[in-house]
Amino acid sequence: MDSALAGLYRDFDRHHLLPLWTQREDLMPHAPRPAAVPHLWRWSELYPLAERAGALVPVGRGGERRAVAIANPGLPGLPYATSTLWAAVQYLGPKEVAPDHRHSQNAFRFVLEGEGVWTVVNGDPVAMRRGDLLLTPGWAWHGHHNTLDAPMAWLDGLDIPLASQLDATFFEFGPDEVTDRSTPRHSRGERLWGHPGLVPVAAPADGPEAAPSSPLAAYRWEHTDAALRAQLELEAEGHDGTLEHGHAAVRFTHPGTGGDALPTLRTEMHRLRAGVTTTARRETGSSVWQVFDGSGTISLDGRVRQVSRGDLFAVPPWCTVAIAAHDTLDLFRFSDAPVFERLGFARSETVEMTEAEATDVVEAFDAAEAIEATGTSGTADAVGGAR
Amino acid sequence: MDSALAGLYRDFDRHHLLPLWTQREDLMPHAPRPAAVPHLWRWSELYPLAERAGALVPVGRGGERRAVAIANPGLPGLPYATSTLWAAVQYLGPKEVAPDHRHSQNAFRFVLEGEGVWTVVNGDPVAMRRGDLLLTPGWAWHGHHNTLDAPMAWLDGLDIPLASQLDATFFEFGPDEVTDRSTPRHSRGERLWGHPGLVPVAAPADGPEAAPSSPLAAYRWEHTDAALRAQLELEAEGHDGTLEHGHAAVRFTHPGTGGDALPTLRTEMHRLRAGVTTTARRETGSSVWQVFDGSGTISLDGRVRQVSRGDLFAVPPWCTVAIAAHDTLDLFRFSDAPVFERLGFARSETVEMTEAEATDVVEAFDAAEAIEATGTSGTADAVGGAR
Amino acid sequence: MDSALAGLYRDFDRHHLLPLWTQREDLMPHAPRPAAVPHLWRWSELYPLAERAGALVPVGRGGERRAVAIANPGLPGLPYATSTLWAAVQYLGPKEVAPDHRHSQNAFRFVLEGEGVWTVVNGDPVAMRRGDLLLTPGWAWHGHHNTLDAPMAWLDGLDIPLASQLDATFFEFGPDEVTDRSTPRHSRGERLWGHPGLVPVAAPADGPEAAPSSPLAAYRWEHTDAALRAQLELEAEGHDGTLEHGHAAVRFTHPGTGGDALPTLRTEMHRLRAGVTTTARRETGSSVWQVFDGSGTISLDGRVRQVSRGDLFAVPPWCTVAIAAHDTLDLFRFSDAPVFERLGFARSETVEMTEAEATDVVEAFDAAEAIEATGTSGTADAVGGAR
Amino acid sequence: MDSALAGLYRDFDRHHLLPLWTQREDLMPHAPRPAAVPHLWRWSELYPLAERAGALVPVGRGGERRAVAIANPGLPGLPYATSTLWAAVQYLGPKEVAPDHRHSQNAFRFVLEGEGVWTVVNGDPVAMRRGDLLLTPGWAWHGHHNTLDAPMAWLDGLDIPLASQLDATFFEFGPDEVTDRSTPRHSRGERLWGHPGLVPVAAPADGPEAAPSSPLAAYRWEHTDAALRAQLELEAEGHDGTLEHGHAAVRFTHPGTGGDALPTLRTEMHRLRAGVTTTARRETGSSVWQVFDGSGTISLDGRVRQVSRGDLFAVPPWCTVAIAAHDTLDLFRFSDAPVFERLGFARSETVEMTEAEATDVVEAFDAAEAIEATGTSGTADAVGGAR
Repeated sequence: MDSALAGLYRDFDRHHLLPLWTQREDLMPHAPRPAAVPHLWRWSELYPLAERAGALVPVGRGGERRAVAIANPGLPGLPYATSTLWAAVQYLGPKEVAPDHRHSQNAFRFVLEGEGVWTVVNGDPVAMRRGDLLLTPGWAWHGHHNTLDAPMAWLDGLDIPLASQLDATFFEFGPDEVTDRSTPRHSRGERLWGHPGLVPVAAPADGPEAAPSSPLAAYRWEHTDAALRAQLELEAEGHDGTLEHGHAAVRFTHPGTGGDALPTLRTEMHRLRAGVTTTARRETGSSVWQVFDGSGTISLDGRVRQVSRGDLFAVPPWCTVAIAAHDTLDLFRFSDAPVFERLGFARSETVEMTEAEATDVVEAFDAAEAIEATGTSGTADAVGGAR
Repeated sequence: MDSALAGLYRDFDRHHLLPLWTQREDLMPHAPRPAAVPHLWRWSELYPLAERAGALVPVGRGGERRAVAIANPGLPGLPYATSTLWAAVQYLGPKEVAPDHRHSQNAFRFVLEGEGVWTVVNGDPVAMRRGDLLLTPGWAWHGHHNTLDAPMAWLDGLDIPLASQLDATFFEFGPDEVTDRSTPRHSRGERLWGHPGLVPVAAPADGPEAAPSSPLAAYRWEHTDAALRAQLELEAEGHDGTLEHGHAAVRFTHPGTGGDALPTLRTEMHRLRAGVTTTARRETGSSVWQVFDGSGTISLDGRVRQVSRGDLFAVPPWCTVAIAAHDTLDLFRFSDAPVFERLGFARSETVEMTEAEATDVVEAFDAAEAIEATGTSGTADAVGGAR
Repeated sequence: MDSALAGLYRDFDRHHLLPLWTQREDLMPHAPRPAAVPHLWRWSELYPLAERAGALVPVGRGGERRAVAIANPGLPGLPYATSTLWAAVQYLGPKEVAPDHRHSQNAFRFVLEGEGVWTVVNGDPVAMRRGDLLLTPGWAWHGHHNTLDAPMAWLDGLDIPLASQLDATFFEFGPDEVTDRSTPRHSRGERLWGHPGLVPVAAPADGPEAAPSSPLAAYRWEHTDAALRAQLELEAEGHDGTLEHGHAAVRFTHPGTGGDALPTLRTEMHRLRAGVTTTARRETGSSVWQVFDGSGTISLDGRVRQVSRGDLFAVPPWCTVAIAAHDTLDLFRFSDAPVFERLGFARSETVEMTEAEATDVVEAFDAAEAIEATGTSGTADAVGGAR
Repeated sequence: MDSALAGLYRDFDRHHLLPLWTQREDLMPHAPRPAAVPHLWRWSELYPLAERAGALVPVGRGGERRAVAIANPGLPGLPYATSTLWAAVQYLGPKEVAPDHRHSQNAFRFVLEGEGVWTVVNGDPVAMRRGDLLLTPGWAWHGHHNTLDAPMAWLDGLDIPLASQLDATFFEFGPDEVTDRSTPRHSRGERLWGHPGLVPVAAPADGPEAAPSSPLAAYRWEHTDAALRAQLELEAEGHDGTLEHGHAAVRFTHPGTGGDALPTLRTEMHRLRAGVTTTARRETGSSVWQVFDGSGTISLDGRVRQVSRGDLFAVPPWCTVAIAAHDTLDLFRFSDAPVFERLGFARSETVEMTEAEATDVVEAFDAAEAIEATGTSGTADAVGGAR
């Protein structure tokens, strides 16, 4: 660089200026180049660590929650599953209480297993059981308490990274205890809003017109399971319903608007019939998947891994995903799709897998039983990134 | 009138012109002056007439349906419940079939009692049972068939008068038979869409984005009943939920949008706790109510009548309605409210009843048991109008 | 009919019931069968009658407006242009005042010629000049006053028939005088909202979120003319913009929503290049057209008439319309299209004209100059109906 | 920390996990703690640097644009005005051409001074002149060319940081030249859409239904100026219109929807009457302001600076802003408000300034003439951050 130009750049720097022409390619790449990488976390590793935290770390004011977040290897030092999504295993010991607070971030819980915890959302106690999705919309007060002598753990999903990057972060402490210790089978939100196609004529003051988030506090597994089963049965009878052949999927929605249950997070449950492989797709926006039941093979940008119950994987933007089901495979998925749709940034496309990739998936699929029998999880988590 | 003016009016007439100044008050009254009048039809009179029609009139091509419409006395010669709504008792004899057709008018069925009929909507067989609401959106093919040896009857509601006045009327004949004789317990519409807060990710081609009408073919009584019961229980526990004290109400909605199930018709179920009287209200738009269960007293513009199971009453625009429940009173209601809301014509207000009116309602309420024991229906149907 | 059936029908009648099967075809025809007929009113006949009314009939409280409505021959005795639309020539003599009032019906004025009248809408004085469209949304106070010594006349369009059939009619008298006698060139509505693509950050309390009607009180001819001219110029330069070849069209919209200026009425201006014939089309819903400038030939369900400046014609639902321009032809059009779109009743289609029809239009077009020279208006208005 | 806990944390790290309880306060602060700081860039410093770049750096393929971005001192090394907004001075020398490209990021140009450049957007040449706002919606092809022998510079605003954080970044090169060298006074977008309240009935294929961005390519200063002037005049006449006393403001909108002109960026023009001080406010979301004309005093979180024509300042989230006008003060503002509103993260509040702060603003205001006469820009840019 000649000295005149060097001088110019020094002066830019001194005046807090930066030229576009030297950075254009990084700022505006031809396609997304996310720092986040595809990655897999094994339940068999995650859960014992949560248990150890249960023994070592108290739950209380300040730290607020005993939640262990998956941290994308491409985002070192940050507790982010992807650049917009936060996902953690939260562990609550026998009779423990997570104190009341509220925040602008939107949150949900998805329960892989167990029962006995009630989350109290704006004063409404909501039972948590295997397969349930529970909502904590932004700025809703909430605390949890475990009524049993056994610990319980579940998946927490929040839009923490998005809210942080937008600096849209507010937080308030509530009481150290939950505000209602009762343990009803159904929350008030469900009793008012949990009837298919029916809405209260007197929508409460925080009703659907005003509320960007669903008033339905809990989506119970019995309904989700029935909806998925019905899609596959309809397909078998020759009717529409599934997303693609052998692939059922339901979205959790706001019954007052039909839109996503939370304004920044899409939540879905998928079920693949045994032997089915999904079309390979990629899209703007990122997602986190958790295997709820069954086992299968995932291909993330061509890297193939076996997955089974409880395993979590992060899919960064524009990463090609294909999933093959070994046996009936149920997957919970959450993503930032509403953000991309609302801001006009949504794009998606199906991707032809190369023959090699397809072979990999099929071979991995064929090998699945053997692999799982011998256990290869020690290396199997290295899905992505520079390794 | 002087002769110059008379000549002008003659010339207006000759050229198909009419002056505003002589008609302004009729065209633009200070408040609605509907021709339709409040009126009550007794089930005890209606149903036997439908039965007689069952014996005398065949169901078939051309007439299409054995439906007996309530005809508002204020709209002589017209089979209209109000100036926008059509309501009829449809009667289908043992093993009878109502042939397939479709029309631009929107329709629903609400079942007071009985079972055994399936309505086949766009090829999807939908069972009909007491308390169910079944939809036939505009331009959907539909026919009915009775699988049992007993007759069945139900309430049909359509927007025929509205569609007629708008000349928005299209009709096509389908096969003489229904297109699917199977008798599943749940329709395909329910299996896809009948799960609280859950929507199929693959909304079918006639899905929620496009479709102005709900894809949920049936709203089952077990859900409606549970939703109403929950509101009253929540109220008893000190929580929000009811429309007003002792008055639960749910609206049947499009699960993909949260809006009304049909674009021109609002459908609701109301439940009054025994002893409760609703606030007197009036609104633009008209409605038809049917007592589903229980008994009570209605006041329509101050005229008071006893009502019990199956009775139908029409409420014209701006007519003040108050309802008192003798015992637990369940009422189905449908109205043209979406039309008024979508066109910006909606208005409503609570009305202070005069002391005399209030006394009437209370006395009528007190006297209800006696009256019903002696039977006064011969005069009791004369609710309104010029008589 | 046998006597049992006759007895049944008598009993139906006695209980205010009507069977569907005897009326189905009238209630639910295969396609719209509007009572309203296509009809043409000549300005050369209309205007002199309005002038005579100006001499004979005072404007004042009660009658409120000296407006002469076109009365569709298919709707005898009713001052309705079609079954939903009201259209009239309003005539205000030198220095006359039409007193303040408001009504739930939506209204606009479209000015064929003249100037000097201000309409005062919710206290905002709005000048009226040739080519301008002025709005009086439902429930807005309004009166008019003529500042000049010459009379002025214009077209009034309202949704009176629709509001009457819906019984959505409220009316209130205001002061006998207009509330503001000032005569600004631009109304306050225009000054706030009449800048392309710009909206006030402080939308007034009756602003766009709440208001179903446009806050832009006046759409000035200079803008409408420029927009139409631009479309034809763009077409000539090889770009998109026109509705079809040689046919420019703009819609008057609510700048805060982009939707129709009034919730029940669509208002548009069309310009046909000399020599152009529009595609024949029909649609649900009805419309009224007024020739603003130029001359041409119209075909309404195959009946062909010459039209020139000021002529008004009514197009009932599902009537096929084609228009040929003799010289540059400007047409104002208003319709009930928003009603049909909002209620899910909108349908439209292009129609192949028969050879005979096409020939008729072309011949009529060729003959236009001759006909107009000799004057055939005496018979030319008989477009439709039973004649 | 005891060794068991240390071991747990090591194992977390090894498995790409991070605990919430040690980071909760950073992730979820009680109120926004943006890294970006309030900062002021002086036009008198910025523009000469852009000129020097004009002499030293060619415009061409790869770098694409000679744009010098303001780089928030709180976001070191990043060319970001705030964490979501990118703002730069783009400089185009005599007869220079910036080559055609497109990207998913949304962009606009706002012209402080000069003329002679046409930006060609999707083939539509759009003249750029002082005070104009020009749009380049996401994925629209665009290049610029300078037709004159004088250089021209303007403000570029984009959502680059937002798109980068969301990884919603696509980019394509077009021709090295602009696609149309013609220099019309008005773009085709303006000719079709630039008429107040009027929209083409034939909205082009990329029309308002589909398009999330405004089809109006240019908002001309003559309209913006007239709209602002009208608001202040209306206020002076006693009517509504201004945002607050002496403070006029207009928003640039999509004429087909009434929403923001771009889906991620809000663009507004503000005018303060001489002597007026705005209410102090803060809000989630950030903004960049440029003084278009006049001079005044700004207070950003209580730090007070003089500003005059061309000066740019960045307002991070939840920073309290108050502005006092020395003489008539015109300010262009852009922000990420649509993002916050669409995602449910929008909050704002008025802030009581402390007496000291208020005094500071007033004193600064009083001192303004003196300061500006003596020139204090060397230090005056240090608005914010840790200094």
